[in-house]
Amino acid sequence: MAVATQSLEELCINSIRFLAIDAVEKAKSGHPGLPMGAAPMAFVLWDRFLRFNPKNPKWFNRDRFVLSAGHGSMLQYALLYLAGYDSVTIEDIKQFRQWESKTPGHPENFMTAGVEVTTGPLGQGIANGVGLAIAEAHLAAKYNKADAKIVDHYTYVILGDGCNMEGISGEACSFAGHLGLGKLIALYDDNHISIDGSTDVAFTEDVSKRFEAYGWHVQHVQEGNTDLEAIADAIEAAKAVTDKPSFIKVTTTIGYGSPNKANTAGVHGAALGGDEIALTRKNLGWEYEPFVVPQDALNHARKAVERGAGYEAEWNKVFADYKAKYAQEAAEFERYVSSKLADGWDKVLPTYTPEDKGLPTRKHSETCLNKLAAVLPELIGGSADLTHSNLTEIKGKGDFQKGQYENPNIHFGVREHAMGAICNGIALHGSGLIPYGATFLIFTDYMRAAIRLSALSQAGVIWVMTHDSIGQGEDGPTHQPIETLASLRAIPNLTVIRPADGTETSGAYKVAIERAKENAPTLLAFTRQNVPNLAGTSIEGVTKGGYTVVDSDGTPELILIGTGSELSLAVTAAEKLTAEGKKVRVVSLPAWDLFEAQDAAYKESVLPKAVTKRLAVEAASSFGWHKYVGTEGDVVSIDRFGASAPGGVCLEKFGFSVDNVLAKAKQLLG
Amino acid sequence: MAVATQSLEELCINSIRFLAIDAVEKAKSGHPGLPMGAAPMAFVLWDRFLRFNPKNPKWFNRDRFVLSAGHGSMLQYALLYLAGYDSVTIEDIKQFRQWESKTPGHPENFMTAGVEVTTGPLGQGIANGVGLAIAEAHLAAKYNKADAKIVDHYTYVILGDGCNMEGISGEACSFAGHLGLGKLIALYDDNHISIDGSTDVAFTEDVSKRFEAYGWHVQHVQEGNTDLEAIADAIEAAKAVTDKPSFIKVTTTIGYGSPNKANTAGVHGAALGGDEIALTRKNLGWEYEPFVVPQDALNHARKAVERGAGYEAEWNKVFADYKAKYAQEAAEFERYVSSKLADGWDKVLPTYTPEDKGLPTRKHSETCLNKLAAVLPELIGGSADLTHSNLTEIKGKGDFQKGQYENPNIHFGVREHAMGAICNGIALHGSGLIPYGATFLIFTDYMRAAIRLSALSQAGVIWVMTHDSIGQGEDGPTHQPIETLASLRAIPNLTVIRPADGTETSGAYKVAIERAKENAPTLLAFTRQNVPNLAGTSIEGVTKGGYTVVDSDGTPELILIGTGSELSLAVTAAEKLTAEGKKVRVVSLPAWDLFEAQDAAYKESVLPKAVTKRLAVEAASSFGWHKYVGTEGDVVSIDRFGASAPGGVCLEKFGFSVDNVLAKAKQLLG
Repeated sequence: MAVATQSLEELCINSIRFLAIDAVEKAKSGHPGLPMGAAPMAFVLWDRFLRFNPKNPKWFNRDRFVLSAGHGSMLQYALLYLAGYDSVTIEDIKQFRQWESKTPGHPENFMTAGVEVTTGPLGQGIANGVGLAIAEAHLAAKYNKADAKIVDHYTYVILGDGCNMEGISGEACSFAGHLGLGKLIALYDDNHISIDGSTDVAFTEDVSKRFEAYGWHVQHVQEGNTDLEAIADAIEAAKAVTDKPSFIKVTTTIGYGSPNKANTAGVHGAALGGDEIALTRKNLGWEYEPFVVPQDALNHARKAVERGAGYEAEWNKVFADYKAKYAQEAAEFERYVSSKLADGWDKVLPTYTPEDKGLPTRKHSETCLNKLAAVLPELIGGSADLTHSNLTEIKGKGDFQKGQYENPNIHFGVREHAMGAICNGIALHGSGLIPYGATFLIFTDYMRAAIRLSALSQAGVIWVMTHDSIGQGEDGPTHQPIETLASLRAIPNLTVIRPADGTETSGAYKVAIERAKENAPTLLAFTRQNVPNLAGTSIEGVTKGGYTVVDSDGTPELILIGTGSELSLAVTAAEKLTAEGKKVRVVSLPAWDLFEAQDAAYKESVLPKAVTKRLAVEAASSFGWHKYVGTEGDVVSIDRFGASAPGGVCLEKFGFSVDNVLAKAKQLLG
Repeated sequence: MAVATQSLEELCINSIRFLAIDAVEKAKSGHPGLPMGAAPMAFVLWDRFLRFNPKNPKWFNRDRFVLSAGHGSMLQYALLYLAGYDSVTIEDIKQFRQWESKTPGHPENFMTAGVEVTTGPLGQGIANGVGLAIAEAHLAAKYNKADAKIVDHYTYVILGDGCNMEGISGEACSFAGHLGLGKLIALYDDNHISIDGSTDVAFTEDVSKRFEAYGWHVQHVQEGNTDLEAIADAIEAAKAVTDKPSFIKVTTTIGYGSPNKANTAGVHGAALGGDEIALTRKNLGWEYEPFVVPQDALNHARKAVERGAGYEAEWNKVFADYKAKYAQEAAEFERYVSSKLADGWDKVLPTYTPEDKGLPTRKHSETCLNKLAAVLPELIGGSADLTHSNLTEIKGKGDFQKGQYENPNIHFGVREHAMGAICNGIALHGSGLIPYGATFLIFTDYMRAAIRLSALSQAGVIWVMTHDSIGQGEDGPTHQPIETLASLRAIPNLTVIRPADGTETSGAYKVAIERAKENAPTLLAFTRQNVPNLAGTSIEGVTKGGYTVVDSDGTPELILIGTGSELSLAVTAAEKLTAEGKKVRVVSLPAWDLFEAQDAAYKESVLPKAVTKRLAVEAASSFGWHKYVGTEGDVVSIDRFGASAPGGVCLEKFGFSVDNVLAKAKQLLG
């Protein structure tokens, strides 16, 4: 079909295809196949349905779009360019996958305005979409009034075979069906090709039937390469279903238009090559040079700019009206959206003295969460089926369920990975909500990819992890973290805090809340078992990551360093050693990266280089501790898997006792 | 119903219930609810169907049983006790969840004979079951003859709501349906209660329909608490379906028999308490003291001992006959099962000189895998849809597919987590198969829980991980490992090897194969990009974890330490420094834990304490490196997320260049 006979929509769709082809060819790297096949559904969605404002990508009430099949990133960059976003110019597209470009290999929300979430690791995007839809449903239920709807948008996701094979998507979509998230609409690019070839080699289930089983509204567009009206009809029908999320299977041909590579794995993740590109141009009647988009197509697609300005202006009027009538709600909503915290919010955080009863830090966490929720109603979250072990319920508030979206307590089910990506989605909704997700610390292993993405994509999530050591006890080694703290501390941009007592727990929450508002995640590790409240701990100390809690009279001979439940062992051991005339300092080091971020003078004041006799105590792997104890120091740690026995027995047997700390300290003192 | 009117089967079932109740009560810890509800299906399965020999728990051709809902461990311990295993006595049951007992909190294959795999982390067991069924299907297809079936058993799994919510189970069961594993039979304890309460709060999908969508044969036993014939009929029907795995939903009542706690979350994970136990005894007509099993029940259940001896004797005859007729196959089979390696197997591993062309280590890995597969046909595995990126295909051999189970190349689909647990299941089949699973190194995050379980449960798996640094390139930070190596090195019992060149890749495989036969997993990290072959590398060096590859004339002033692709930077920098008259040693440290396992003298010979000027070079996080560089050393590392750009550009920009290594080295030399 020659250009002359192509409709404006077809011109736009072919523009997307060739931008993808040309950009991948120039980079000699990338995935042209998905954009070529999914361009019709994506363009129909963006052109006929998606409400957004290209000149204000952060306009609050925009529809959210997620390309869960993130390897097809050129699809999204082409859409952003066609729609008139300033973030992606034709020069940016020519820089596809190059150093510091706005068009990285996979969509990254922190690099490119108009990209909502970071995708690429498969299945994350659809689960983020569930989070985005939860955020919308929650805010709509909280703030909308019969006469003024200020929160009212859809979340659209394009996902592929890879996303549908990943367990995380199953978890998230089962949960979305349970919640009946009617404004979540997923388009499945059913191209039956993955990297290993036809999906016949590994993936022959009935995907639509599975989504029906999840409780979704399911449709099938048979001819997704060309039948634009069928695509539009399906999206329209999906929007009409308000009590279920919608799944639209759109059967397409990967690499559509390429005479020799369409419908092969060869077009999935590699450039087509000059010869095949020439054939594809001929086949699709495309007469333009590389990176040239016909002006007619641009003119058509960029009507989005005017439409978008109109949408926003309309919404601004609605909001002004709302503000006039509902000043209090509007003020709270505006605070949320501007990422400000309520004045004096941190004054609710309690501190403790040694006279206060020793409690598990998870119990202190519950206190903090509940006190904070009273002043920061933007807190929303819950546990992966361990609510009463993690102690994450906001009391007096209801559960977030179908028809009760105004409530903050989410029961994620035993779906840690989806919980992670859903929390990321809630945070990246950009509406000031502070999501938290909880499970046992060991089960961060199930959701690690999502935790990493929270750190990478600047999602202000609080990860509440309890049962943080072999003190977990009887559940045994499958449930006892050993290497877990180290593995999390190693993640860039993720602050891991393991508080020692009630006061440090308050410090941990102070950091976590502030970081959340700065779009950074924090992972909190809490004990199952009781710990005493210590004299020297402080909120301020926690914010510095490490500080002296017990000091010696004069330069110390030995520094004991502890975190969490083991800090009290260090303190008690220090008392005994001091009584014996030794000069011993105790340093609490609840958050390594925060300590590293302090200036050199402060770090030297806490851990003076000259004091080389150092003993760290932590009921976890020694991995990483040598940075602080140096080559002459030692670590009381556990470098094997744990065991099933009462928590106190485990701790004692593995050497987490005052006696053992004393013995090791004396070895160092010589 | 009084004891007098209970059938022998009912007596046995109630014995299981009360052993669980009493053991949890004594421990004041554990999960009585599942055993009380699932006892009927479990006992019917064990008593009427399961073929095993209690006096030889490792008898090769036994049916495999997996309690995927591992928190109900007392169910399994009660079954083992009733069936007459020596591993679980009544004294062991009284020691439930105590230090070093045979009855830990969750079933652990390395603690208790008769337990096939380690469960507890939900969803792992059912995925292990898929692996066990794959192992059976593979060996059956390879060794069985028309006149002699030496491999012929079922794999049965009991799973619960929690398992079914986890994404890993969805991945594994979709794959099992694809493969048509007819001898895999899963019983779903549908008790509609999880820790947070009724599954109504989070899990309302149609599970049976989902399994139908996966291609399973699906049945429903409506009354799983009492209708033993319905359970038996369903298992019989499942066995009759040979081309699909079977899913039997068995509706039960959690805590069945407890008047006040049945059907509540309260009975899921806590002791019933004395009063409720008394009421439950009364309600179920149970007149026995705690831990007393009526002799009639024991007599009935322990017919399993005689049956089992018969099964094994019968099989021994079949095998003797087979051996007589098919000596060569029998010899190979016996070598497999005895965990012996083929004589001279390691002679196939190539070594290289600097004159040999530089290649990516993933390419060397492909060479090793293929050369090894020729002499060790027990290798079986594949990739999670990255076969031609990971380079894991065994060439000239076909794909493991329905009806072609004799082939070793498994296409796992984009299902990393299931791949992990399936590989664990294949290894723990105990038949000498060496499974391997591959993906990009970064996506170990998706399967970390399974990798950890390979280390904990002594599963001899080889994890083949490619694209091991920012050298991955254009895919960008979502695909570039930074903290990943550190996070894996921290796992106990997991050897992580990052070889520098072709020779070290051979060394890595030598270690991995030997460890697999010793039931220990190894993770191999390979480059995407070319690396030169170095002069000083050796297979033997790799087996020691760390060794000197370039030495100075006399005591070094500086030690450069490298791994993988960065070792060559260290070697080149050392050459330049040596040319400038410096005394520089280069140490290759491909496997930290192997190095730690060497004696002190060897370690001192490689890294003399007196040499404190040390510079490590690794394109990954510095986390953990201070153990080797000490407080006076430095690390050329990357402690932020990567970026999308060609791999060479990324490496250069982030400081992985000879110039930067030289500059840092000179800073240290002062």
